[in-house]
Amino acid sequence: MSVREFVVLGTASQVPTRRRNHNGYLLRWDGEGLLFDPGEGTQRQMLRAGVAAHDIDRICVTHFHGDHSLGLAGVIQRINLDQVPHPVTAHFPASGQRFFDRLRYATAYRETVALTEAPVAEDGILAVTDAYTLEGRRLSHPVESFGYRLTEPDRHRMLPAKLAGHGIAGPDVGRLQRDGILRGVTLDEVSEPRRGQRFAFVMDTRLCDGAFALAEGCDMLVIESTFLDEDVRLATDHGHLTAGQAARVARESGVRHLVLTHFSQRYHDPQLFELQARSAGFEGELTIAQDLVTVPVPTRHQ
Amino acid sequence: MSVREFVVLGTASQVPTRRRNHNGYLLRWDGEGLLFDPGEGTQRQMLRAGVAAHDIDRICVTHFHGDHSLGLAGVIQRINLDQVPHPVTAHFPASGQRFFDRLRYATAYRETVALTEAPVAEDGILAVTDAYTLEGRRLSHPVESFGYRLTEPDRHRMLPAKLAGHGIAGPDVGRLQRDGILRGVTLDEVSEPRRGQRFAFVMDTRLCDGAFALAEGCDMLVIESTFLDEDVRLATDHGHLTAGQAARVARESGVRHLVLTHFSQRYHDPQLFELQARSAGFEGELTIAQDLVTVPVPTRHQ
Repeated sequence: MSVREFVVLGTASQVPTRRRNHNGYLLRWDGEGLLFDPGEGTQRQMLRAGVAAHDIDRICVTHFHGDHSLGLAGVIQRINLDQVPHPVTAHFPASGQRFFDRLRYATAYRETVALTEAPVAEDGILAVTDAYTLEGRRLSHPVESFGYRLTEPDRHRMLPAKLAGHGIAGPDVGRLQRDGILRGVTLDEVSEPRRGQRFAFVMDTRLCDGAFALAEGCDMLVIESTFLDEDVRLATDHGHLTAGQAARVARESGVRHLVLTHFSQRYHDPQLFELQARSAGFEGELTIAQDLVTVPVPTRHQ
Repeated sequence: MSVREFVVLGTASQVPTRRRNHNGYLLRWDGEGLLFDPGEGTQRQMLRAGVAAHDIDRICVTHFHGDHSLGLAGVIQRINLDQVPHPVTAHFPASGQRFFDRLRYATAYRETVALTEAPVAEDGILAVTDAYTLEGRRLSHPVESFGYRLTEPDRHRMLPAKLAGHGIAGPDVGRLQRDGILRGVTLDEVSEPRRGQRFAFVMDTRLCDGAFALAEGCDMLVIESTFLDEDVRLATDHGHLTAGQAARVARESGVRHLVLTHFSQRYHDPQLFELQARSAGFEGELTIAQDLVTVPVPTRHQ
């Protein structure tokens, strides 16, 4: 399965609204599912969006404010109730271990599923799978917050005409890909590089180096834009971004598809976020997130 | 304010559905609000039902399964975020103190409101106010569960003709009500008894003495009927009631208005609960609860 898509479960910051549940997002990355920042009510939003507990392999929590993590309790209980047959790994700021413990054992239930806790204490690589490398980077927020980035390994796209010219066919193609050389022919001679896809999830934060590092060259960047630009002082004081700031991160990082989310309930017209992101010079694909929408990850760069 | 009504925030047992959020109920009793069993997502259901954090004076949790209590975390944080100006008291089974602690401090927030913890360790009176006496009674469920009952004090309805006959008027009426006697005239001579209203909230439980004691003579009984009668064995095994059993409690207790709720997601036709409640011989007012519906508490007996 090579479905790569981003399912939006909730888009509200701090308090939910009639249209926006608290945060929550599922990234489908080939056969795997990564749940980001499950706020309260994520369990029910999953039902509405067609996401099953079985779809979750990994959980990534940026920080332990309620709108990013209160839903953990229900999601973990549901994973156990549904007896998900695979292990699940949870990444979260190590400084919030006590909060994770409370949410994991918030009320009485029977634990049936192996849940591995993988607290994040510093910038670096958190996991390496065939499909991606997962990194975490510290952001700038009143409580410790980490953003996440998935990087698919760069690979090679084989060129059939060149392979034929060297008489390489059948199982020999796989051998050449694996070993890098076959009968004196190198991989580079019969292929072109194919850059892996890159995805980043950035919230909550002020402008900071971590945000730019996570966003660098991303095919898709999901980033908070709690405030509009006129409230930049509020944003900075509370450790948040404005629409223009978020778009600046995306523009300077060469992002292809920018997804803005985590909106303050004080604003009623989502279009203003779009206008400000465009005013900040971002020219790529742009999605102003709505609950229960699915956004495909852009196809690979050629 | 003498509004007495029961606001249904959620009606699902165990797992939410598209139409039913996890449990959650607000009883408005004159100027006071009592929140019962806030399951996950109660904070957002409150918004949908027009219930503000300010409306909550008291929280009553029957037991610490997630569908009855995971919403506590969000509700408590919201009470603090909104800086509710009055104290709030929370009642819950004392044996679940550790769960209450985890939910109260599930994630980082600033505590601004006085929240009094009033754990319930045995059957008895929990609070006495001008408007009611609150009692708790142990139910029968795999984890310790307490049901709740509000009893308005019995009072007197003054009879104007009799008052006039004794020449009692103006402030003297209040004096007679307060002291029970005035110039040789007793309260009983110029009034008739007016029975106080009674309300009970019963879940989760098998049939047990506690359920009958709570329901006795209630104007409104809100009671779980997780299962239909054909699944009575499942109900008993898991410590729940069927529609017929819940209706039997109501009928034998002389309940005026029966509210059935906490339905298993396995059933798709709510009308079956109504049919089975009627088959069990309950003839009073009957509500099969739906999310976001408000049910008035019946007016007083004459």
